Amino acid sequence: MISYTIQEIATALNGTLVGNTYQKITGPEQLDFANEQQITFIGSKKYIKQWQSSKACAAIVNEDFEIEVGEQKALVKVKNADTAMAQLLEMYVEEGPVFENDIHPSATIHPSAKIGNECRIGAGCYVGKEVVLGDKVTLYPNVTILDKTTIGKGTTIWSGTVVREKCVIGMYCILHPNVSIGADGFGFRPSPDGRGLIKIPHIGNVVIGNGVEIGANSCVDRGKFSSTVIGDGSKIDNLVQIGHNSKMGRCCIMAGSSGLAGSVTLGDGVIVGGGACISDHVTLGNGVLVGGQSGVINDFGDGKKVLGYPAIEARDALKQWAILRRMVKEGK
Amino acid sequence: MISYTIQEIATALNGTLVGNTYQKITGPEQLDFANEQQITFIGSKKYIKQWQSSKACAAIVNEDFEIEVGEQKALVKVKNADTAMAQLLEMYVEEGPVFENDIHPSATIHPSAKIGNECRIGAGCYVGKEVVLGDKVTLYPNVTILDKTTIGKGTTIWSGTVVREKCVIGMYCILHPNVSIGADGFGFRPSPDGRGLIKIPHIGNVVIGNGVEIGANSCVDRGKFSSTVIGDGSKIDNLVQIGHNSKMGRCCIMAGSSGLAGSVTLGDGVIVGGGACISDHVTLGNGVLVGGQSGVINDFGDGKKVLGYPAIEARDALKQWAILRRMVKEGK
Amino acid sequence: MISYTIQEIATALNGTLVGNTYQKITGPEQLDFANEQQITFIGSKKYIKQWQSSKACAAIVNEDFEIEVGEQKALVKVKNADTAMAQLLEMYVEEGPVFENDIHPSATIHPSAKIGNECRIGAGCYVGKEVVLGDKVTLYPNVTILDKTTIGKGTTIWSGTVVREKCVIGMYCILHPNVSIGADGFGFRPSPDGRGLIKIPHIGNVVIGNGVEIGANSCVDRGKFSSTVIGDGSKIDNLVQIGHNSKMGRCCIMAGSSGLAGSVTLGDGVIVGGGACISDHVTLGNGVLVGGQSGVINDFGDGKKVLGYPAIEARDALKQWAILRRMVKEGK
Repeated sequence: MISYTIQEIATALNGTLVGNTYQKITGPEQLDFANEQQITFIGSKKYIKQWQSSKACAAIVNEDFEIEVGEQKALVKVKNADTAMAQLLEMYVEEGPVFENDIHPSATIHPSAKIGNECRIGAGCYVGKEVVLGDKVTLYPNVTILDKTTIGKGTTIWSGTVVREKCVIGMYCILHPNVSIGADGFGFRPSPDGRGLIKIPHIGNVVIGNGVEIGANSCVDRGKFSSTVIGDGSKIDNLVQIGHNSKMGRCCIMAGSSGLAGSVTLGDGVIVGGGACISDHVTLGNGVLVGGQSGVINDFGDGKKVLGYPAIEARDALKQWAILRRMVKEGK
Repeated sequence: MISYTIQEIATALNGTLVGNTYQKITGPEQLDFANEQQITFIGSKKYIKQWQSSKACAAIVNEDFEIEVGEQKALVKVKNADTAMAQLLEMYVEEGPVFENDIHPSATIHPSAKIGNECRIGAGCYVGKEVVLGDKVTLYPNVTILDKTTIGKGTTIWSGTVVREKCVIGMYCILHPNVSIGADGFGFRPSPDGRGLIKIPHIGNVVIGNGVEIGANSCVDRGKFSSTVIGDGSKIDNLVQIGHNSKMGRCCIMAGSSGLAGSVTLGDGVIVGGGACISDHVTLGNGVLVGGQSGVINDFGDGKKVLGYPAIEARDALKQWAILRRMVKEGK
Repeated sequence: MISYTIQEIATALNGTLVGNTYQKITGPEQLDFANEQQITFIGSKKYIKQWQSSKACAAIVNEDFEIEVGEQKALVKVKNADTAMAQLLEMYVEEGPVFENDIHPSATIHPSAKIGNECRIGAGCYVGKEVVLGDKVTLYPNVTILDKTTIGKGTTIWSGTVVREKCVIGMYCILHPNVSIGADGFGFRPSPDGRGLIKIPHIGNVVIGNGVEIGANSCVDRGKFSSTVIGDGSKIDNLVQIGHNSKMGRCCIMAGSSGLAGSVTLGDGVIVGGGACISDHVTLGNGVLVGGQSGVINDFGDGKKVLGYPAIEARDALKQWAILRRMVKEGK
């Protein structure tokens, strides 16, 4: 088990130590759940009063908060307790699941696949024809990578995830469990007799940039032709749907259960709240902010904040909500 | 095939038999789909008139309904036909998928894993280092359990489900297919140059109580530190998202496609309707009822019924809707 | 790599060739992304002006558009460029992922399963007791089919998908990756002491017609008794939830992240927009159109267009939205 002295932690976080504790600190925990061997943090003034009753032996706190340290307890004062906490978490990261064999004998790897150096491939994985894995790619057990897909250096793919044929995944990406990359897009045309639907072939692929993270059970469909694109550094949460031929810029964020229909274009740094949906062919500029559960059916330019169903500029949506509340109050 | 006489069914349900049928009854079916060997049920007066034309040889009915039994047909009168129906279904449960070997030779089980008595582990499963399975745990084919996770007695995990490392699953739980437990929470901080996002490590886990059911393709993310917690007896439907560090009380219900963002706290017996989302850090008291597709952005105390986007008390939401309908009618 | 001359393409599409190009055409691409060896298409007048700057050597265009062909470039004039494009895509479909063995030695197939002619079963698949696969069924690697399920001729099931026991899948269906078919429906009753929930057994199954497509990570739950039914030719997108005992007619369309709660009945040709939810026991007639993210809590008859939360007739929902916008504008 990883543990540190309070001095080691204060030094690592470049903080100022107030008070002292002789505990070996085994990890971080919330104020109310911490035990005597744990360190907590106070990033908001409203939690200061809970410090006296917390069992934690130490806390990381914002340097401008006035907090009495207490006996045999310690405070590590830092500029920003939230940021310091993220640094502290890095210190407690334990090694992930083990690989007894770098390539498990129960994995099926096509002889034409190119496997980079220091790759790890778990039990039950399938790696298809002409797949290319860069160096230090990790596939946890029961991952499926189909033919001609390439996966960049240092990417990690968790169990149950499926990447279909001819897709391109960048370097240092993380695909969480049960993700589906490269399924056919949802496109049909009426049959000649007008009574049915005929599938439109989807011959494109998915291209994912570097440093992208895709949450558990999320889906990115392949392009009808051309590619569905996720830009470098974008972060996608769980259960998110990305429709065929959508193009996402750099460092976008999509929160859980949100979705892009087909052929949506997002600029750089767009943030889409949980449960929000963006309709077909909509274009959103750089830095657009879409409120949770909004339904966006129109284009919006750089930096707009939008909200509601259908989504409008956030200040107007808030006004609509205020009007409705007032009307109820006035019994209209 | 399981079958019963009408006398056997009447006895088992502690009901009163009216009329008779000599059919061997092979199972329950709706009034309009049943054949002569099936039993149906009438739990609402509006269905009484369909009884004469139904092919079913028997029906379970509320004892206060006036229904003419008909020739060579039977009624089983009970206090509550709905409850009796649930009992009847138990009588027709057939054995689940077979295991020819208790532990399939194609499963990969780390030698350090502890496997309880009478466990069944299907083809292609992976059970990692220091995993502990209690007695009578069933893993259907192609389940992945990563290192140091513990799974309680009598729990059943269906195919395609992934439980990541160091999670704790209670006794008598059911995880349906393609569930993802313990993926990293969705947490990032801006990079020092302000142009990118840096992943915050998630060193916590998921702790699931006893008697919990988690629907197909649902996700429960691990805590940043500390645990994401699902209380005893809670029931989660399909495609539900539970964000990191959320804490759910006892016997909560979350219907399909709903979600909790990060650090949400639910009391006991909270019911969340289909498609509803609860925002980050919201706290809902015991017995709160959230209407379908609502978006909850504020705390609500015990017993509140909330509805709408953003969610307000249900009676106020209904008033808003009535006002809007009236305005349209009046052509305002 | 597949390629065609412009003459071959014009002939195949039954179009009129204007101008010429000597390029071997390697595939279709959007106007702005195409290279000199690619063909593009112009199905809307607003894109005509981009033709001059496109690098594409050829374009498929509507015959009534006036477009200057340009030097060493070609136009293929057709009645409807969109439809012709779908035909063109068929010409460029490459063979899917390979199967070195028709039945991979690492697949586990119960000896009692009946496997049709020309079936292909990938690595790590599980096919349970008394499963029946029709001719030409394809299971990509890591698919799980549990006992007594039958799958019709020509159906394709992608990796990670799970079909539970006793389900019936029709002919020429496609199940995309990580789909869950036949999980228990979400049904519980209060325990006798009123403090808990008791699971209601789900002894029914799922019956899927012919020509059905089900998107990645979607779920169709089994009936409590009787069947959950998906009619012939229906198309379901990704991350869609179909609750137990719902019945869907022929050629329905459900867009991404939408859902049916339990016991919903859809007529033929119903279209449900992305993110929309239909409540328990609702019935929608033939050809009903449900707008994206709507919440349908009432029945609607044939041909109705409904929209909003709660969903009302679309023209009334649009009026509500207009009234709200006007009130904000007028500062009420």
